[in-house]
Amino acid sequence: MDKIPQEQAGYLAEAFRCEFVSLCGIWVEKIRRGYLESRMEVAKRHQQQNGVVHAGVISTMADHSAGYAAFTVIPEEYEVLTVEYKINFFRPAHADSLLCRARVLKEGGRIMVGESEVFAEAGAEEVLVAKATVTLAVVHKDKMPQKGSASPE
Amino acid sequence: MDKIPQEQAGYLAEAFRCEFVSLCGIWVEKIRRGYLESRMEVAKRHQQQNGVVHAGVISTMADHSAGYAAFTVIPEEYEVLTVEYKINFFRPAHADSLLCRARVLKEGGRIMVGESEVFAEAGAEEVLVAKATVTLAVVHKDKMPQKGSASPE
Amino acid sequence: MDKIPQEQAGYLAEAFRCEFVSLCGIWVEKIRRGYLESRMEVAKRHQQQNGVVHAGVISTMADHSAGYAAFTVIPEEYEVLTVEYKINFFRPAHADSLLCRARVLKEGGRIMVGESEVFAEAGAEEVLVAKATVTLAVVHKDKMPQKGSASPE
Amino acid sequence: MDKIPQEQAGYLAEAFRCEFVSLCGIWVEKIRRGYLESRMEVAKRHQQQNGVVHAGVISTMADHSAGYAAFTVIPEEYEVLTVEYKINFFRPAHADSLLCRARVLKEGGRIMVGESEVFAEAGAEEVLVAKATVTLAVVHKDKMPQKGSASPE
Repeated sequence: MDKIPQEQAGYLAEAFRCEFVSLCGIWVEKIRRGYLESRMEVAKRHQQQNGVVHAGVISTMADHSAGYAAFTVIPEEYEVLTVEYKINFFRPAHADSLLCRARVLKEGGRIMVGESEVFAEAGAEEVLVAKATVTLAVVHKDKMPQKGSASPE
Repeated sequence: MDKIPQEQAGYLAEAFRCEFVSLCGIWVEKIRRGYLESRMEVAKRHQQQNGVVHAGVISTMADHSAGYAAFTVIPEEYEVLTVEYKINFFRPAHADSLLCRARVLKEGGRIMVGESEVFAEAGAEEVLVAKATVTLAVVHKDKMPQKGSASPE
Repeated sequence: MDKIPQEQAGYLAEAFRCEFVSLCGIWVEKIRRGYLESRMEVAKRHQQQNGVVHAGVISTMADHSAGYAAFTVIPEEYEVLTVEYKINFFRPAHADSLLCRARVLKEGGRIMVGESEVFAEAGAEEVLVAKATVTLAVVHKDKMPQKGSASPE
Repeated sequence: MDKIPQEQAGYLAEAFRCEFVSLCGIWVEKIRRGYLESRMEVAKRHQQQNGVVHAGVISTMADHSAGYAAFTVIPEEYEVLTVEYKINFFRPAHADSLLCRARVLKEGGRIMVGESEVFAEAGAEEVLVAKATVTLAVVHKDKMPQKGSASPE
């Protein structure tokens, strides 16, 4: 249900893995209309001093996944930019892997809103460690901000 | 003015560079009471699809710098945890380097608030690309959440 | 299910209607453990220039309802203070009445997080107009900030 | 410096006082390009249970003032809508009056960002009690959302 074309799903899963997201080791698990699930295996490079996953990794996962969930519901000639987001951290992420479930809360118009929940997976357990709300601007490809320019007109 | 002891400054600048922050290539430039400046050189690994710096990198810089600015004003036996933050992106970050200026907005008590401004530096120009507000919990080292436990009591 | 004692429910519904919330005309509809529903009838005094409900009314409803949802899960000798919140407005609220559904997202410890969804009701229709995330501090009554003092120690 | 025409200033100060903002008793004190100062006298109707000013009043002041600060920098045929905001409360507002200083952080394009600081005034003292970041959409009057319609196209 709410499937998107195989080809589009493949394209988005591929585009998802830009340089920084590859560095973080985050990949797409599931994608359907208005929804995206991503996952990453926790490694030493993701940590802060005390051995837990750095908030920056969790934020990257939450923001990026919400952005790509939005990509599934907009026309082909448009792109999505993060205007702002807010993220709450509920507890430290001690985990073997992290799972992010992102969905579109509000679609239509020039402003979309998504939300992402990030879960720490350890063995069979899954614990909610963070939740983000992400505001996105939907911008025509021809009006995307250029190098050195200001934000979308 | 508002200097902190050389030894503490050195210790914080060192501790700042945890695994993930080193991976991002962010370091401390200046530190004084309630204030921290950090910088990073932009490289290919920081980018998203369109060649601009990924929001996740900017967020990591903003959150982490605000947290360490807070470290300069709390007693030695305490630590700081990010409860939540909110970040607005004003324009795409096309830059040679990024500079973050973080300062403590509200100190005292168990909850502190900091804010960070991130600037894109290209040649002699400096452009504000993002601003974050960061809420921090001040927690006694003995009460820091343990592996597998919930958030601070 | 998840009922709270009749007496506590009555007390909270009564306390909910402080001066400003009465002025806004917001009342409690349902209350159970970790959940609170509130409602208000839209009147001329709630409006902004263009005839829609002012964001300040919606925000008051969202924040206040999340705070009281939190009250249902904390020990009797504690109180709840709003540390911060973030609210997204999805569409203008043209409505006969507004309904708010608030629930606790994260409980336990000194910091709780709730979220509220506000719906515009017009006839039989119900449309989501706003969503808020609310960070709350749980403070012992003896440690509540006093007149003129700073925030909770 | 950065003055706006007397006539525009008068019009904005008047429009500022919509139904709900009048009910709250908030008025414009100063206005110039990209900046607005508002004030209110604290009365019993603004309070929550414990005698402090309700967060909803402070939020209304912060959001509304940032919106009108934005009005000073946009072309005449455009309007401003609050997309979202985030507000931190630093300490309870025990005050005779509240003062809000709102300014535009980022202008240009379809998305603007403002920030507001709210101060509690008691005698000669002025204490920062809250700070908000407000994201605004700049919408042409002909494209403002209509009754029952979705958000701006």
